[in-house]
Amino acid sequence: MTTVMQQPDPAPAAEPDVPGRPYRLASGERRERSTFEIGGRLVGGDHFAMIAGPCTVESREQLLSSADAMLAAGATMFRGGAYKPRTSPYAFHGLGEDGLRLLAEAKERTGLPIVTELMDVRDVEAVAEVADVIQIGARNMQNYTLLTEIGRSGVPALLKRGLSATLDELLNASEYILKEGNEKVLLCERGIRTFETAYRFTLDLTAIPVLKELTHLPVIVDPSHAAGRRALVEPLSLAAAAVGADGIIVEVHPDPDNAVCDGPQQLRNDDFPDYLRKVEQAARIAGKLVGGVAA
Amino acid sequence: MTTVMQQPDPAPAAEPDVPGRPYRLASGERRERSTFEIGGRLVGGDHFAMIAGPCTVESREQLLSSADAMLAAGATMFRGGAYKPRTSPYAFHGLGEDGLRLLAEAKERTGLPIVTELMDVRDVEAVAEVADVIQIGARNMQNYTLLTEIGRSGVPALLKRGLSATLDELLNASEYILKEGNEKVLLCERGIRTFETAYRFTLDLTAIPVLKELTHLPVIVDPSHAAGRRALVEPLSLAAAAVGADGIIVEVHPDPDNAVCDGPQQLRNDDFPDYLRKVEQAARIAGKLVGGVAA
Amino acid sequence: MTTVMQQPDPAPAAEPDVPGRPYRLASGERRERSTFEIGGRLVGGDHFAMIAGPCTVESREQLLSSADAMLAAGATMFRGGAYKPRTSPYAFHGLGEDGLRLLAEAKERTGLPIVTELMDVRDVEAVAEVADVIQIGARNMQNYTLLTEIGRSGVPALLKRGLSATLDELLNASEYILKEGNEKVLLCERGIRTFETAYRFTLDLTAIPVLKELTHLPVIVDPSHAAGRRALVEPLSLAAAAVGADGIIVEVHPDPDNAVCDGPQQLRNDDFPDYLRKVEQAARIAGKLVGGVAA
Amino acid sequence: MTTVMQQPDPAPAAEPDVPGRPYRLASGERRERSTFEIGGRLVGGDHFAMIAGPCTVESREQLLSSADAMLAAGATMFRGGAYKPRTSPYAFHGLGEDGLRLLAEAKERTGLPIVTELMDVRDVEAVAEVADVIQIGARNMQNYTLLTEIGRSGVPALLKRGLSATLDELLNASEYILKEGNEKVLLCERGIRTFETAYRFTLDLTAIPVLKELTHLPVIVDPSHAAGRRALVEPLSLAAAAVGADGIIVEVHPDPDNAVCDGPQQLRNDDFPDYLRKVEQAARIAGKLVGGVAA
Repeated sequence: MTTVMQQPDPAPAAEPDVPGRPYRLASGERRERSTFEIGGRLVGGDHFAMIAGPCTVESREQLLSSADAMLAAGATMFRGGAYKPRTSPYAFHGLGEDGLRLLAEAKERTGLPIVTELMDVRDVEAVAEVADVIQIGARNMQNYTLLTEIGRSGVPALLKRGLSATLDELLNASEYILKEGNEKVLLCERGIRTFETAYRFTLDLTAIPVLKELTHLPVIVDPSHAAGRRALVEPLSLAAAAVGADGIIVEVHPDPDNAVCDGPQQLRNDDFPDYLRKVEQAARIAGKLVGGVAA
Repeated sequence: MTTVMQQPDPAPAAEPDVPGRPYRLASGERRERSTFEIGGRLVGGDHFAMIAGPCTVESREQLLSSADAMLAAGATMFRGGAYKPRTSPYAFHGLGEDGLRLLAEAKERTGLPIVTELMDVRDVEAVAEVADVIQIGARNMQNYTLLTEIGRSGVPALLKRGLSATLDELLNASEYILKEGNEKVLLCERGIRTFETAYRFTLDLTAIPVLKELTHLPVIVDPSHAAGRRALVEPLSLAAAAVGADGIIVEVHPDPDNAVCDGPQQLRNDDFPDYLRKVEQAARIAGKLVGGVAA
Repeated sequence: MTTVMQQPDPAPAAEPDVPGRPYRLASGERRERSTFEIGGRLVGGDHFAMIAGPCTVESREQLLSSADAMLAAGATMFRGGAYKPRTSPYAFHGLGEDGLRLLAEAKERTGLPIVTELMDVRDVEAVAEVADVIQIGARNMQNYTLLTEIGRSGVPALLKRGLSATLDELLNASEYILKEGNEKVLLCERGIRTFETAYRFTLDLTAIPVLKELTHLPVIVDPSHAAGRRALVEPLSLAAAAVGADGIIVEVHPDPDNAVCDGPQQLRNDDFPDYLRKVEQAARIAGKLVGGVAA
Repeated sequence: MTTVMQQPDPAPAAEPDVPGRPYRLASGERRERSTFEIGGRLVGGDHFAMIAGPCTVESREQLLSSADAMLAAGATMFRGGAYKPRTSPYAFHGLGEDGLRLLAEAKERTGLPIVTELMDVRDVEAVAEVADVIQIGARNMQNYTLLTEIGRSGVPALLKRGLSATLDELLNASEYILKEGNEKVLLCERGIRTFETAYRFTLDLTAIPVLKELTHLPVIVDPSHAAGRRALVEPLSLAAAAVGADGIIVEVHPDPDNAVCDGPQQLRNDDFPDYLRKVEQAARIAGKLVGGVAA
């Protein structure tokens, strides 16, 4: 064994992987709170983002009617999934590139910035062509390859907290994007896993004011996936706005009973204007206004 | 072994202890939402209860100045602990009967109903003499002896959810009180235990709208113990009011830096009026008004 | 407010209730590992305790036949509940004093030390007359009144870890008993609450070697309540013995299919001798032998 | 909105994404328990796999001396990471392709099958050239792109359970690999996230017998990452073997105090032979023998 080693020290700059290690660029100590522009809309500060639309791109009619309804009601961005992560390999996984084309059409038609998920690094260019914001799902929060490539794409990112990720881990994950020079990262609380079985996830609203102490990045809330049931979406959205979130990403569908997935948790297009009005009231208590157009 | 048995069937009416078993009296299917009177104040329905005061009764001056301040600001009830459950046997456990006497004086002076905790069944008479509401702490949520005796006392009860209790278990615990004929039970969410270490507990606000589906009992929120830090108490209180809680129980102290216990989480008396005004705004979004005096 | 205060400082010796605060008497730093005698049997050190018997005292025949079977197979203590904590107030709560009388008869007949639960401080004398070990259930782990009175009774205690109690909290709870001068405390891991729904609780065997670093007290495992199903009891018992537990408390019943409660998790008397033989093999790997009679 | 839709039904075969949905190929109902061959070694059935080696490939000397020591002691496979997932982007991420070359050398020298992690789908060919088993880390358990590509590679897979993944989710994740025709999947329990802070993760050994009811796939345990501390590795390994695991994957290093990462949890090469002997004894209680060479 004495003769084997010629290779130089493999990791002279190696640093220990301490969980609580400073996320240099995400840290709130370094700089003032971020406000930035996405597709002509301002995010962060006193601008409350209302990102709304269907879970999944299902068809041209479904998508465009949704986009029209969201625009009319006053949403600030439009969401819709072309690539869907699913627990089972036998479930519907999205329309893929066809879905992206429909999202591009919705954007051209309404002018609303598009938020859509990326799952496979090999799709990054195709998604970046359409998306104003690339979403990273909770199950991919620590898919470091994906984070790095989204960082390099330069497209603003919406990073969802993993089902049992600590805030430290969420901020370290955001650092993977930031360190590639991509400064537009939105963090998103979407419910954590607990012992309670009466609801799908437990929305952790304490995370919002605490993240605002730890980072300058905007923090939004996804009440739809947390709740898993339409009846809970409005009260949780009001709470999210009142606690100081910088926005909400919510699922709204023209006909949830016939949705391809997640029907029970999607609001109806028809109920969205009333919902938005109430959320605006709650956001105002926390000092924020829905919307904000870049000068 | 053939001769031993003469004893009659020991449990002819025994029923299996299924966790999800119907809590007959607490169930929301049976009846309309409860609104009831406590010490001249209405609780439940569209009445938002603001129960405020110091963690612990420390001295006559501390207690009476707190009670005066809470009355002046518009709190609906006054809280203060004479018996304190503590993790360590060497910590301060409250003034006991001296504390009860001071609470009685505060009540006489301000007219505010008193909320105080009972830990030992042998103290039930002494506490019942002073308390308008007897509090059962999270660690005693399944202390069935205590629940039964409080049920028998006829004094309204404030039952805190255990640190990892399911809603089913909370409702079954309330059933122990209700089945003794005591119909005035307030449920209280105070944070659950999760993996997150950046805060003491994770306030579970999803529990509020879900409990309102499951039971007719009023449901309030304790933001102070959930958060463990003053800076989080206001945002969590706004969220609790916006999500539809029937009230808040919050710790307020004339001089938190010198409090005997839980100083860091207690609001200052001086900040309480502003805090209350904001919480009222959030409660209004959910259709509730602070206070309500019985006709 | 200037004239009110004459009362002296109420809590001059008050100490803050820091969660991680040293449990002086339970701490492993203070002294060597405890080995003590209970009803003629040695517990701790290299003695592995096998505490077995039915969940509940149901009848004279059921109890005495169980006790005979446990003695014949080589159990070191006999367990059976006369007072049963139940989630629902409508479930069977045990035979009470009749149950205690039957336990006394089982003890006289077999010589096996009796382990039985106490729930109400007002029953402490009645239980102490029969019990060689008083069990404190998981839901009462922080019922400080109960802990203190069991400490004062001088009867050895078996303290179960709460469903989401940290090791620090468990040790602080044991300190309530120890500080009354009662040195014979057995700690018991019985499963914690997690997000997993495929089994009732998640047995936390990492707690065993960690508790042995933190305290000198013996630590045993309850596989029956953790698992909730008979098929899991043997593998979990083998794991508990192999990881270094000082014993097991297991439910065994002559006819589990007709048991008044917890039937599905109770082993059959007939299967117990084989089970015990396997557990002995696993305990031997960890350097322990089942049993041990005081000289 | 009336003219938009011509596109045919986008998802005629779409199935709902029900969490508990049958994992057809992983299910234990379909077939008898899997025993298969990996690099000349048998895995599953009564063969207990001992996969050992350093956390990370650091240098030629470190790796080859480790491989020699593992072979001499009787390990059945050799582990070592060339690509390391790290919470922070600033930590050491492995030697990459240089690491793979050293692993190939270790394999040629010792004949031990190589277990190493893949993180980026774009590296699948390079890793597949060296690896006898491709490891999928806990953070990538639901990285469906990665699972699918490993399925297609045909290389046996070691799939680690996510930090808060249910058994249903773990089995559905394995289904992504199996459905590509790759039948050699090892599942791995490596500790789950709970509220306890006295240790890094909580090893969930109940998962082992329950997984054996649900699936025909072999199930192994990673005590090193669960514990995070060397002193806990041996007791947890004994428990894992006694509970019926099909093997262990454990970190062993020639000089843990100077390891590039995870030093505190790695066993010393010198202590490994004794450790392996004890684990063999515990495995024997559960009816398994370490090793097994394909005929």
